[in-house]
Amino acid sequence: MELLITYDVDTTTPQGRRRLRRVAKICEGYGIRVQKSVFEVVCSEADWLLLHHRLLDAIDSEHDSIRSYPLPRGTFSAAHHLGHSPSAGHDEPLIY
Amino acid sequence: MELLITYDVDTTTPQGRRRLRRVAKICEGYGIRVQKSVFEVVCSEADWLLLHHRLLDAIDSEHDSIRSYPLPRGTFSAAHHLGHSPSAGHDEPLIY
Repeated sequence: MELLITYDVDTTTPQGRRRLRRVAKICEGYGIRVQKSVFEVVCSEADWLLLHHRLLDAIDSEHDSIRSYPLPRGTFSAAHHLGHSPSAGHDEPLIY
Repeated sequence: MELLITYDVDTTTPQGRRRLRRVAKICEGYGIRVQKSVFEVVCSEADWLLLHHRLLDAIDSEHDSIRSYPLPRGTFSAAHHLGHSPSAGHDEPLIY
């Protein structure tokens, strides 16, 4: 499944900035960062449940917000991009 | 159509902060802000083209990034939310 993850983490405190780094690190383990607070994830349903569990454990529910949109296959390649682009797509080869 | 708009605008300069305000203001005219830099938009295809045109005009393409995901109807109501929620959904009544 394709999953778009967006988050707002309150960074007005050192604890908040730690939570932000933790959320980003968790998401990096599952998908591609396309903007500062937006990740595109291609994963199984089991991974999706685990990812949600880990994110819920990482945030402060009173101050932070995470949204995840389950999407039909192919949505990422249909996305439109304006301006500078930070990353390669999921289906593009990585050349070292 | 449903459209998810996410953006990263470089706010390290006063010009960037102005662009950020302008991008947010444009998006506010079309949809609901669900996070600081994420809008859910329900619009016609004509509105979608106009919105893209206005956003492209508002950003600095070398420093800013906007992504828009065209989504099947019903995707917004299937989204999962963790933590605090800033707004009502598109189909919920507004009570004054």
